[in-house]
Amino acid sequence: MRLSELGERNAIELIAKIVHAEKFIGDDCAFIPLGKNYLLITTDILTQKTHFPKEMSFYEVGWHSVAINLSDIASKGGKPIGLVIALGLPKNLDTENLKELSKGIFECGKKFNAKILGGDTKENENLTICGTAIGLVKKENLMRRKGCKVGDLLCITNYLGYGFLGYFALKEFYSKNIIKTNLQKVIKKFFMPIPRLKEGIALSKIKGNCCMDISDGLANSIWQMSSLNKIGFEIYFEKIPIAKEVKNLAKKFNLNFEDAIYYGGDYELLLIISKEKIENAIKEVEKVGSKLTIIGKVINKGNFLIKDGKREKLENRGWEHFRNNYNNPAF
Amino acid sequence: MRLSELGERNAIELIAKIVHAEKFIGDDCAFIPLGKNYLLITTDILTQKTHFPKEMSFYEVGWHSVAINLSDIASKGGKPIGLVIALGLPKNLDTENLKELSKGIFECGKKFNAKILGGDTKENENLTICGTAIGLVKKENLMRRKGCKVGDLLCITNYLGYGFLGYFALKEFYSKNIIKTNLQKVIKKFFMPIPRLKEGIALSKIKGNCCMDISDGLANSIWQMSSLNKIGFEIYFEKIPIAKEVKNLAKKFNLNFEDAIYYGGDYELLLIISKEKIENAIKEVEKVGSKLTIIGKVINKGNFLIKDGKREKLENRGWEHFRNNYNNPAF
Repeated sequence: MRLSELGERNAIELIAKIVHAEKFIGDDCAFIPLGKNYLLITTDILTQKTHFPKEMSFYEVGWHSVAINLSDIASKGGKPIGLVIALGLPKNLDTENLKELSKGIFECGKKFNAKILGGDTKENENLTICGTAIGLVKKENLMRRKGCKVGDLLCITNYLGYGFLGYFALKEFYSKNIIKTNLQKVIKKFFMPIPRLKEGIALSKIKGNCCMDISDGLANSIWQMSSLNKIGFEIYFEKIPIAKEVKNLAKKFNLNFEDAIYYGGDYELLLIISKEKIENAIKEVEKVGSKLTIIGKVINKGNFLIKDGKREKLENRGWEHFRNNYNNPAF
Repeated sequence: MRLSELGERNAIELIAKIVHAEKFIGDDCAFIPLGKNYLLITTDILTQKTHFPKEMSFYEVGWHSVAINLSDIASKGGKPIGLVIALGLPKNLDTENLKELSKGIFECGKKFNAKILGGDTKENENLTICGTAIGLVKKENLMRRKGCKVGDLLCITNYLGYGFLGYFALKEFYSKNIIKTNLQKVIKKFFMPIPRLKEGIALSKIKGNCCMDISDGLANSIWQMSSLNKIGFEIYFEKIPIAKEVKNLAKKFNLNFEDAIYYGGDYELLLIISKEKIENAIKEVEKVGSKLTIIGKVINKGNFLIKDGKREKLENRGWEHFRNNYNNPAF
């Protein structure tokens, strides 16, 4: 059987079983006991063809590679230590581009107090970047993906929709050379996501939460949480904090902004928390200048979207490697 | 300027300057203070086209990727914790091959007490493996590359030459379909190197050593140590422990086994140690069932090879990415 038939998630399960890493399957980071702390470690491998649209600058590519790793640390409530960055570089890469890439890597790390600790460079036909981030979290503050119960609330930090609009803009506007000024701010947020580290640390102080980032899309993340915890969710569509600028632009270009929940590329945190703790959580997140919105609750079984007063099934779609075709939607 | 003109080492310097990681340049691992220990972290990115000859099995590829990272931990005197492995996989990869790859990864880790902590899988046109290993070493036991003085002795663990003969065998024999039985044992050692962890730990107990692995070749490693420490070396060619089986096979096939020092692919440790400590070091390495051989000494300036009683310049050649052509010698 080929990987294209097996799909990413089955491939991961197959590997995890053989290498005996089932413990961390489904978690954004591995966590290793180290005194009073857990050492967090997470790795992400990105390649030009599948991850970096040609409109992305080398600086943005560098930033992106660091940010997505730090987002995994954030979802565990961790404080980053730093990253190692391994680069597979084409022989004919221009030195100026390598400089810009390095600058993006450094500046994203600096912004979030993560040092670049070292790395590796090798030749590769396609520009490939593998970042590995490490961080620390007090043992009692670790947020896992597993551990919620019926009645708990589902929340999300800040606003989403930049992934959705970013993909669309790349597909529709750049290729057709339509003036893009209005969209540039949105695309920038898509290319240079903000890892929600301060939100993660704030939330981790309120113990017993489940957390993950929504990098594969909101709907997809909800399905993952549901399958891991063997529970279901009821989501109130009107509560989902889709960014106003995304809604406005979507209307302008006749897009259905409701699709935003099926697109990856947003790096907000998805939190499951008990009713007793929610008030405190909202307060703690506000203290660091952000927002936490309740968008649903844990139910016994099945994932549903409540929209215009109607209860419909939440579709299980989003991004999956090997199965999906990179020529669609944007690459 | 293209990377092919800049070369790997200049590229690394350029990146390190921009990302402010000069501290670790030239060291096999980054080391982060953590209580009484240093946390060691190292990453290596390998790709099929440039690192895995077609004769290498998927199992061997998996083993190799783990072993070379653990070798970096060994060179610092560290004890491994584990690794994360990021895989860039072609869409049409057969599932059986993925299983073999995973098995090689797991079994190398298991052999050397390194857990596979997690990883990432993404689509990539070329099979790409990025392993990141972490480990611990007591602060006072860390071995760095820098810190030696004139009069110190240069030593190497065990035997070398498998890289040299491995490259040659791949180039000459496999392609010409010459019967390879005699060579298989040697090639196996080339494909599945042993990280010298127990030797590294034994040596790190004798404080104040400099150490690195010779993965880029012995001559090249000596040049790197020389440039970092601003000293020189005198090497006694006849003392270099080239493996007997390598010498015999080299003779049989009319090869100049002296070239072994210019080939990468051996993963022995190169140690610089003061005269007062050498006896103890040899004893400690013997205790773990290995050998430590004095092959030279630190001098003021210049790198020389003493061979047949004659003193000649040690050539600065070995492997460098981007500059070298992968079609030569073996890939």
